[in-house]
Amino acid sequence: MGSSYTTSSPSSSKLLFRQLFERESCTYTYLLADVSHPDKPALLIDPVDRTVDRDLSLIKELGVKLVYAMNTHVHADHVTGTGLIKSKLPGVKSIISKASGSKADVLVEPGENIRFGDLFLEVRATPGHTLGCVTYVTGEGPDQPQPRMAFTGDVLLIRGCGRTDFQNFALYLVKGKRIMPHELASLLSQEEAQRSSTSLCIHRQEHEIMFIFTLPKDTLIYPAHDYKGFTVSTVGEETQYNPRLTKDEVIRWPNSGFSDL
Amino acid sequence: MGSSYTTSSPSSSKLLFRQLFERESCTYTYLLADVSHPDKPALLIDPVDRTVDRDLSLIKELGVKLVYAMNTHVHADHVTGTGLIKSKLPGVKSIISKASGSKADVLVEPGENIRFGDLFLEVRATPGHTLGCVTYVTGEGPDQPQPRMAFTGDVLLIRGCGRTDFQNFALYLVKGKRIMPHELASLLSQEEAQRSSTSLCIHRQEHEIMFIFTLPKDTLIYPAHDYKGFTVSTVGEETQYNPRLTKDEVIRWPNSGFSDL
Repeated sequence: MGSSYTTSSPSSSKLLFRQLFERESCTYTYLLADVSHPDKPALLIDPVDRTVDRDLSLIKELGVKLVYAMNTHVHADHVTGTGLIKSKLPGVKSIISKASGSKADVLVEPGENIRFGDLFLEVRATPGHTLGCVTYVTGEGPDQPQPRMAFTGDVLLIRGCGRTDFQNFALYLVKGKRIMPHELASLLSQEEAQRSSTSLCIHRQEHEIMFIFTLPKDTLIYPAHDYKGFTVSTVGEETQYNPRLTKDEVIRWPNSGFSDL
Repeated sequence: MGSSYTTSSPSSSKLLFRQLFERESCTYTYLLADVSHPDKPALLIDPVDRTVDRDLSLIKELGVKLVYAMNTHVHADHVTGTGLIKSKLPGVKSIISKASGSKADVLVEPGENIRFGDLFLEVRATPGHTLGCVTYVTGEGPDQPQPRMAFTGDVLLIRGCGRTDFQNFALYLVKGKRIMPHELASLLSQEEAQRSSTSLCIHRQEHEIMFIFTLPKDTLIYPAHDYKGFTVSTVGEETQYNPRLTKDEVIRWPNSGFSDL
């Protein structure tokens, strides 16, 4: 199992990478830049409004040029810094998934790539926490960071996953039928209903984050939050130790992909 | 300036590295292990008592064997996890500098190396925050992590440094004469005295952390604390942007090294 854990940080002569923390909401913001490119184009993933000044000051000091301020999803636990960044640096473009139903300069869809210099991020659909949740994954190729890095937002956390039982986005499947949370009680036994807000969500989530788990085992997992002080994990490690992935199956979302979401 | 910032993470096929955060005291604990060695020997730098269970659980999951629990200095702002770790894993040896005046299984002195598998940490004397403060620096060599990593404790923080005006350890030099803090007022003008608790400390500190700044510019700085959400910096970046290093000189500790501390 060692190989999944060996490296805990990406290696690339091009990539400048910084993980930044906002203590109140326990949010991680990520700065990535291609410093081998003459323009040193940079992007911020999941910036928080309260820490925009810190982030922009760092960006200035590092001499990189912010081109994108992007979100993995619509955040419920903090205010995104995207708007504030755009007002301070009008050239910056905001990015969010089309499926989020939210507004941004660029609406991305699964399978698209987001390029900054010679580096790029793939957009992967990972609904679960919200319908529009995407995971941004560094590209595959000799010039891209190794191991790959997955910015999972709230869908996959270290040893956990984001809740799926709130916002209008949350849907549930019971034995293949899509239902809304308020319908759960009538469909399930009392015991099942009691655990529905956790177990159903967990198992719906479990299926969806499987899409992340098609990545190599040494892929680095960088979540949008951590409440226990972890900073990074790997696909190999989460496959083995994430309690949301290792418990017995109760109800599983059908294996039909996400096209019907 | 780009080259100092290019890489923000160490690369090594041997090193497993994790940065862990304790939110109450904003302390970083670092886990390092040589996973290419059959024993997978590991060490923890600056563990916190409140997060010992998290750390030991992670160590177990990662399949590494903890051999050392070490401190960069005697902590005033949190309780070290060393004692608790030793009670839970009796084979683990504690390490601290001899100059700290504290007790540990192994008392290290500047210039010594701490080996774990085929990797090692150098001990560098960096008094300032306390007299016994040391910085642990990953070794130089083809098999050692690149870029090098400096675990600076409280002596050098990202864009700051630890206070030097408390504990019995703090001493001050004014024009070459060693004085105690309470003597400052009589030696300095009123204006100087007002700023003494910061500027004198800063400049004493400034000299001492210069010892860290003899390291290559791309050396990664991993402090024991951060209050603003930064996780890493580099020697190049701190040389240029740390306000404790870029202000005009007021009073400078003589260039005689640290032997008289």
